[in-house]
Amino acid sequence: MTEHSVFTTLSLFCVIICFYVSKTGSAASSPNIIIMLMDDMGWGDLGVWGQPSKETPHLDAMAAQGMLLPNFYTANPLCSPSRAALLTGRLPVRNGFYTTNAHARNAYTPQEIVGGISKDEILLPEMLKKKGYVSKIVGKWHLGHRPQYLPLKRGFDEWFGSPNCHFGPYNDTKEPNIPVYNNSEMVGRYYEEFQILRETAESNLTQIYLQEALDFILRQTRAQKPFFLYWAPDATHAPVYASKPFRGKSQRGRYGDAVMELDYSVGRILASLKSLGIDNNTFVFFTSDNGAALVSGTEGGSNGPFLCGKETTFEGGMREPAIAWWPGHIKEGSVSFQLSNVMDLYTTSLAIAGISPPDDRVLDGLDLTPVLLNNSLKNRPIFYYRGNELMAVRLGQYKAHYWTWSNSWEQFKTGINFCPGQEVPGVTTHDQMNHTLQPLIFHLGRDPGEKYPISVLTKEYQDVLKTFTPIVQQHQKDLIPGVPQLNMCDRAVMNWAPEGCEKLGKCLKPPESSPWKCFWPH
Amino acid sequence: MTEHSVFTTLSLFCVIICFYVSKTGSAASSPNIIIMLMDDMGWGDLGVWGQPSKETPHLDAMAAQGMLLPNFYTANPLCSPSRAALLTGRLPVRNGFYTTNAHARNAYTPQEIVGGISKDEILLPEMLKKKGYVSKIVGKWHLGHRPQYLPLKRGFDEWFGSPNCHFGPYNDTKEPNIPVYNNSEMVGRYYEEFQILRETAESNLTQIYLQEALDFILRQTRAQKPFFLYWAPDATHAPVYASKPFRGKSQRGRYGDAVMELDYSVGRILASLKSLGIDNNTFVFFTSDNGAALVSGTEGGSNGPFLCGKETTFEGGMREPAIAWWPGHIKEGSVSFQLSNVMDLYTTSLAIAGISPPDDRVLDGLDLTPVLLNNSLKNRPIFYYRGNELMAVRLGQYKAHYWTWSNSWEQFKTGINFCPGQEVPGVTTHDQMNHTLQPLIFHLGRDPGEKYPISVLTKEYQDVLKTFTPIVQQHQKDLIPGVPQLNMCDRAVMNWAPEGCEKLGKCLKPPESSPWKCFWPH
Repeated sequence: MTEHSVFTTLSLFCVIICFYVSKTGSAASSPNIIIMLMDDMGWGDLGVWGQPSKETPHLDAMAAQGMLLPNFYTANPLCSPSRAALLTGRLPVRNGFYTTNAHARNAYTPQEIVGGISKDEILLPEMLKKKGYVSKIVGKWHLGHRPQYLPLKRGFDEWFGSPNCHFGPYNDTKEPNIPVYNNSEMVGRYYEEFQILRETAESNLTQIYLQEALDFILRQTRAQKPFFLYWAPDATHAPVYASKPFRGKSQRGRYGDAVMELDYSVGRILASLKSLGIDNNTFVFFTSDNGAALVSGTEGGSNGPFLCGKETTFEGGMREPAIAWWPGHIKEGSVSFQLSNVMDLYTTSLAIAGISPPDDRVLDGLDLTPVLLNNSLKNRPIFYYRGNELMAVRLGQYKAHYWTWSNSWEQFKTGINFCPGQEVPGVTTHDQMNHTLQPLIFHLGRDPGEKYPISVLTKEYQDVLKTFTPIVQQHQKDLIPGVPQLNMCDRAVMNWAPEGCEKLGKCLKPPESSPWKCFWPH
Repeated sequence: MTEHSVFTTLSLFCVIICFYVSKTGSAASSPNIIIMLMDDMGWGDLGVWGQPSKETPHLDAMAAQGMLLPNFYTANPLCSPSRAALLTGRLPVRNGFYTTNAHARNAYTPQEIVGGISKDEILLPEMLKKKGYVSKIVGKWHLGHRPQYLPLKRGFDEWFGSPNCHFGPYNDTKEPNIPVYNNSEMVGRYYEEFQILRETAESNLTQIYLQEALDFILRQTRAQKPFFLYWAPDATHAPVYASKPFRGKSQRGRYGDAVMELDYSVGRILASLKSLGIDNNTFVFFTSDNGAALVSGTEGGSNGPFLCGKETTFEGGMREPAIAWWPGHIKEGSVSFQLSNVMDLYTTSLAIAGISPPDDRVLDGLDLTPVLLNNSLKNRPIFYYRGNELMAVRLGQYKAHYWTWSNSWEQFKTGINFCPGQEVPGVTTHDQMNHTLQPLIFHLGRDPGEKYPISVLTKEYQDVLKTFTPIVQQHQKDLIPGVPQLNMCDRAVMNWAPEGCEKLGKCLKPPESSPWKCFWPH
C-alpha cells in the first residue's frame, strides 16, 4: 500500500466515522417514540398491577426496567375520544370528539358516523414531521373512517390496521364489514380476508400487528430516520382474540389469551430495540385507551381495586395501566405518583423530539419529561369528562364528583351494567345526578374504590371544596368547546367502498344519504 | 513460641473450626423458621399485589428475592380459627376452633370465651422441640387467654404480646383492658402501660414487636440454636395504629401508615438475617390471618380484585398475600400457582426442620417444600369453612359454593356490611342459602371477582360438578369434628387478674361465674 493510498483509506475511514457520529448525534437529539395503546385493557390486567394470574412477564419486566405511573388517566372512558385526546394533546370537549345530542353521553366513531378528527386539530405525527420523524400507526385508528379523516391524511406516513372497531357486523349483507388498510388502500375486511373466528376467539391479527411494528422499526433504524410508532392493537376489545399458539394458554380464559399475546408482542418489540442497539434512543410508553369493559363479562378485563369500568368516570373507567421505558434515561424500577394522562403523551413526545408545542391553542397535556427523567412532581388537576359534561375532578388524593351516573335505568334493565357486582348507593347512580352544589368527595388514597364519600360536615370536606371550587370555575370559564364531531350519523357513509376495493372486487353499493342525529345511550 | 505451643495453638484452632463447622452443619439441617402473620391485611395491600400507592418496598423486595403464592388461603375468614389452623396444621372444624351454637358462624376468642386451644392438639412449637428449636411468639396469640391456654404452656419458650385483640374495652371500668405479656407474666395493659391513642392512631407497639423479634434472632444466632419465630403484630386490625415516625406518611391514611411500619419492620428483620449471615439458613413466610376487614371502612385494607372481605368465604375473605423467602433455596422472583393454605405452614415447617408430622391424626396441611424448592405443583382442594359448615371448595381454577351468606339482614340493617359497594345477586346473600344440590360454580381464572356463576346448563358446569362431588362427599364422610371450643362464654373468665398483676398492682376482681352460650351473629 502506498503512502497515498494509506492516506486515502484513512480519509475514507474518517468520513465514515464522522458521518456515523453525526448521524448518531442527530438521532440522539431526535429519539424514537413508541406509544403502545391497548384497547379496553384495565389497570388490574397486568401482573405488576396485581392480576392474580401473573401472566404478563414482559410487561412486568418493562416496568422493572422503567417507570410505573399508578396515577395515569385517559381523557374519556371510551375509545375514540381517548385516542383523539392522545393525538391532539387536548380534551375531547376541545378537539370536538364529543356529542351534544344529549347530556353527558359517551360518543365514538361507529361506521355510521359522519364526522372525524377536525382538520383544525394538529396531530402528533404532523408536529413530529418538523424534525423529520417518519410515523406509522399499526392497528385501530378510530378518529373517523371517511377518506378525509384517515391516518395518511393526518401526518402518518404508514398505516396498517382498521378505521373502526372489530365488533360487528360479522357479514357483508346489511352493513359492510370493517376494512383493513395497508396505507391508503384497503387490503381486505374483518371476518373475510382477516379472520376472527368468534366461536374459538382465534385470529392472527396481533401477530400481523407485531410484524408490522418490527418491520417498521427495522426499516427506520436502517434508514437512520427518527420514527414515531403508534402501536394500537385491539385484541382485548370484545370479541377478544388470540392466535393459535396463545389460545387456551391463559388461566384467565380468552381475555387472558389476548393479554398474553400482547405481552409477548411487547417483549418482542423491546427486544428488537435492544438487538438493534436503539433502546437508549427510543422512548416507549405503554397504556390503554379506557378502563376494562366490565360490561363484557368474562371477555372483559380487570380494573383492580377501582370502581366500575369503561363508559364511566369512576376510577375503573379512566385510570389506566401506564409504563414508561427508556433505558439510560428513565431510572429502572422507579414509580411516579404524578397525576398524568394520555394528553401528556402529546406534549411529552414533542419535548422529547425537541419540538415546541403549538402556541395558538390550549393544550391539556403536560410535559412529563421532568417526571420521567428526574422524578419531579407537579400539582395539576385531572378532569373527568363524559361527552360534554365535566363529571369529576381529581387534585392530589381528592376527587370530587360533580355529576354521577353509570347508565340509565332503561339501559340497565336490558342487562347493560357498567358496574357489575358493584353498587355504591348515591354514587353508581342510574339517574344523572347533579352534585354541583355539593360534590361527592373521595380520598383516593385511603379509598381507591370510591366507596366512602367524605361527610360534608367535616372540615376536611370544606377545605377540599375550597381548593377545588376556583379550579373548576376557572376551567369552565376558560373552556371553549370545539365543534362537536360526533353528532351526525348516516348509513351512506359506512365502509361500503373504501379506496382499494375495486382491485379486490370488494366494493359495495352505499344506500342513499339519510343523516340523523346519532343516538348515544350511555 | 515453642514447637509444642504452636501445635497446641493449631489444635485449639482446629477445635474451634471443627466446632464451628459442626455447629453450622447442625444448623443447616435445622433451618430457622420465621412465620410473619399479619392481622386483617388483605391480598391487595402490598405494592406487589397491586396496591396503587406502592408503599411496601421491603415486602415487594422480599417477593423479588423469593416466591409469590397468589393462590394461598387461610383456613377461616376470622382471626382465632385461622391462627389455630396455622399452629395445628388442621382445619378449625377438626381442632375445635369453631362453634355449634348456630349454623355457619364465625367464632373467635374474645375475653368472655371459656375455651381455648385443646390440649389434645399438638402445636408447631411443641413439635419443633424434638429438634431443639427455641420458639418465640411476638404479638397476638388469640388461642385462649385463660392460664392453661397461654403460649408458654403450648410449646413456646418466649412470648411478648397479648392474648386477645386490641379493640375495646378502652378503660378498665366494666371490663378489664387486654393485658400485654412478657413470657408468663403480664407487664401492663393496652390503653394503659401500652398506649394506643385512638384519636391519633398512634402506638409504639409495632416498634416494640420489631425489637422483640430482632433481639430474639440475635440471641438465638449467638447461642447457635435453631429457632422458630412466630411474628404476629396486629397494627392493621382496627383500631389501626402506627408509631410517630410513620404517622401521616402514607397516601392511604391511617391504615396505610400501619402497613408502612410493618413493611419497614419486615425489611429490618430480613436485613438482620442477612447481616448475621443466617439468611441462607432461615425460611421466612409472610401472610395474613384473613382477608381485609372491609367492614372497617377506611380503617380496613384492600382485597384487590376479590369479592367481599373478612368474615366471608368469598375470595376476599380467605385469599391471602403470601411470600416465601429463603435465599439460596427458593428461587428469586418465582411465582407458584399451587393452591396452598395456612395449614401447610405447619407441615412445611416440620419438613424443613426434618421432623415427621404426627401420625395419629388427620392433618390438613401439605408439605410445600417441593413447591418452594422445585416449583412443582400438586392438585389438591381448598376447603372454605365458616364455623361448622363447609361453605365452598376450590379445585384448580373452579370454586363451588355449597352455602352462601355474607351476614343476616338483621345485622346488615345495623350498618354491618362485609361486602361494601359489592353486591352480586344470589351470591352475596343475606339469608343462609343452601346450594348443596346445585352449587354456584365460578372459574376463578377468568372471574376472580366471583361475579359470573357458570350456567348449570353448560357441559362445563356438569363436568366440574362431577369432579367436585366425590371430593366433597369423601371429605365430609371422613371428617370427625373436634370438640367445639368456642361455644361457652363467661364474664368471670375475662382478663381480670392475669399472672403478674399483683406486682403491677393491676389485679381486678372478677364477677361471679355465670356462663352462657356465646352469641355469634356472623
